[in-house]
Amino acid sequence: MGFPKPGHTPRLVEDQMLDRIRHTLERGIEDTGLRDDAAVVVVPHGGSLVVSVDSVVAGVHVDLALCSPADVGWKALMGAVSDLAAMGARPVGALVALCVPESAGEGSLTLGVMEGVAEASRASGCAIVGGDLSASDVLTVVVTVMGTVDGGVAVPRRGAQSGDAILVTGPCGGSAAGLRTLRAERNAPAGVEQAQSEALSEAYRRPVARLAEGILAREAGAHAMIDVSDGLALDLHRVADASSVGFALDAVPVAEGATLEEALGGGEDYELIVVIAPAEVENFMDRCAAAGLRPPQPIGVVLPDPDDRRLGDDALSRLGWQHLIG
Amino acid sequence: MGFPKPGHTPRLVEDQMLDRIRHTLERGIEDTGLRDDAAVVVVPHGGSLVVSVDSVVAGVHVDLALCSPADVGWKALMGAVSDLAAMGARPVGALVALCVPESAGEGSLTLGVMEGVAEASRASGCAIVGGDLSASDVLTVVVTVMGTVDGGVAVPRRGAQSGDAILVTGPCGGSAAGLRTLRAERNAPAGVEQAQSEALSEAYRRPVARLAEGILAREAGAHAMIDVSDGLALDLHRVADASSVGFALDAVPVAEGATLEEALGGGEDYELIVVIAPAEVENFMDRCAAAGLRPPQPIGVVLPDPDDRRLGDDALSRLGWQHLIG
Repeated sequence: MGFPKPGHTPRLVEDQMLDRIRHTLERGIEDTGLRDDAAVVVVPHGGSLVVSVDSVVAGVHVDLALCSPADVGWKALMGAVSDLAAMGARPVGALVALCVPESAGEGSLTLGVMEGVAEASRASGCAIVGGDLSASDVLTVVVTVMGTVDGGVAVPRRGAQSGDAILVTGPCGGSAAGLRTLRAERNAPAGVEQAQSEALSEAYRRPVARLAEGILAREAGAHAMIDVSDGLALDLHRVADASSVGFALDAVPVAEGATLEEALGGGEDYELIVVIAPAEVENFMDRCAAAGLRPPQPIGVVLPDPDDRRLGDDALSRLGWQHLIG
Repeated sequence: MGFPKPGHTPRLVEDQMLDRIRHTLERGIEDTGLRDDAAVVVVPHGGSLVVSVDSVVAGVHVDLALCSPADVGWKALMGAVSDLAAMGARPVGALVALCVPESAGEGSLTLGVMEGVAEASRASGCAIVGGDLSASDVLTVVVTVMGTVDGGVAVPRRGAQSGDAILVTGPCGGSAAGLRTLRAERNAPAGVEQAQSEALSEAYRRPVARLAEGILAREAGAHAMIDVSDGLALDLHRVADASSVGFALDAVPVAEGATLEEALGGGEDYELIVVIAPAEVENFMDRCAAAGLRPPQPIGVVLPDPDDRRLGDDALSRLGWQHLIG
C-alpha cells in the first residue's frame, strides 16, 4: 500500500510524488490507508478488512531471463501477501489482474504465471477470489490482497516508541544476492558454487511472506511493523519517519552468501521488522519458538531523536532498493 | 471480475482461456467468484464484501491520442465501479495500481490519471483507500473495488428464469460511437456536427456506472444482472449462458448518433441489463422514477431454450466488444 514501488525512480523522489497523489485524492481518501503497508476498511454491518495492492512489471521488478513465468506469479502474490504480514493480518483472499503480451489462444505465459500464483496461494493460505485478464505489451501482474486481524487491531508503521526493541524475523539480502548470482551464472555458468547458488536464487525467485511471525508479533503487542520490501535500511527509515523517532542498530543479520550492502539496500526479502516494548521481546520470541519458527533477532533500539539514525557508530543512510534490474 | 478483458483476442477464445485459468487455480479458488461481475467475500466476524478488479491498458482499452490522462483515470475507476453496480452493490472503497511510463520526478501523466480517478471517486462515492505506483513502458491502471449489499444478497448473472422480463437502464452504443466520432474528428475536424459529437465523446471519455439503478433493481428482486461492458449482445449472452436460458429481444435502445451495431457490439456503455420477474417490472420502474432516474426500458423476455436467442426474428450472435482500438 501507499503506492510503494516506482521501479525506475529514486525513493526520495517517489515519496514526493506520493505526497502529490495524496493531495490530488484528498477529498476521496481514507487517511489511514495511504501511509501504511495496507489500509483498514470498515465493512458495513460488522468487521473490517486489511487491504493492499502491489504490482510486478516485467523489466522493472522482474527480469524474465532470470525468472520463470511461475516465479513471476509467485513473487507477485507473495509481495502483496507480505503487506498483510506487516500489519499482523491473516489472508482472506486476493484478486489478480494479469496483463500479458500474447494472444489468448497461445496462453503459455498466462498459464505459467497463474500456476505460480496458485502455488503461492496454497503456500500462504490466500485464496484467489477474482481477477482480470488483459492484453498488454508488458507483462504486468497486479495483486490486491484482503486480510483480517481477527478482532484485533492492525499493527501500523507509526507506533514505534523511544526505548522499544527492534527485531527482524530473519537475515536479509538473500533476494538481492540471488539476483546477483543468477546474473553471474548467466554470464559465466561455471564460476558460481552450486549449493549456495540454489539457496540464493530460491530466495530471489520464491520469497516467503512471514505471516505467522506477523500475527504472533501483533498478539505479543508489537508497536510498529514493516516488511523488508525495499531494503532493511529504507524500510526501517520509513518506520522511523512515520513514528517521528530515530534508531540505533547494533547488528544486521546478513543472509549467507549476501553482502551487508545487499542486506541494507537489496529488498524483496519480506522479513518483518518488528518494533516492540523491551518487556515483550521474550513473549514474542517464546511465541515464535512454540510455533516452531526461526527465532527473530534483536538488532537495535528506538531513539527519541528523529535525526539520530545509526548503524554502530555511523549514520545510516536510506540506501534502499533502487531498482534491482540494470 | 472473471478475468473479463483480454484486449486483442476474440471473446470465445478468451472464455476458453478463463476455463483453463480456473482449472489452474482450482485448489485456491472461491467458486462463487470467477463467473460473476464481482466476487462476494465473507468477512471474518461479520459482514461480507463484493469485490472486483478491472484493468485499463493504453493502446488496448484506451487510445491516449483520443483521451486525456484524466479520462483514462475516470474510465478505469468507473469501469470497476460498474461491476459493483451489476451486483446491486454500493461502493465501499477502491485500490488503484498505476503503472506509468515516466520518471517520478516528471509526474504530469501520473497526476493527470489520478485527477481523473479522484473525479470518478467523488462522482461515484467510492473512496480511494490504497494504491501502488510503478514504472512501466505501458500506461496501465488497475482498479480493485469493494462494495456492500447492506445485508442483502448480491444479484448474480446466473439467476435468469424463463418468462422473466429483460430491461436495460439506458440506450447503448454511445461509447463506441464516441470513439468513432473522436477518430473522425482527428482525421477531418470539420466533418462532424459539434453538439452531437460532444455528447458522444463524453459517453466514451466519461461513462457513468449505474449504481443507483443496480441497488434499486436488487431491492426490487432482480433475478440476474450484468453491466454492458462488452456490448449488449455479448453481455446478454453471458447472462443467458450462466443461467442456461435463451432470450427474445424485441427492441434495442440505441444512443443518439450511434448505430445498432455499436449498441449490440460496442461496449463500455455501463448501462445495466436487468432480468426480473414480470410482476416486479412496475415496482422497479416506480423505484427508478421516485429516485428521479431515467426510466429503464423493457427490451425482451427470457426463453427456456438455451439455444434460442433472438433479436426480432433473427438469431442474435455474440458480436460483442472485439477490441475498440483498431
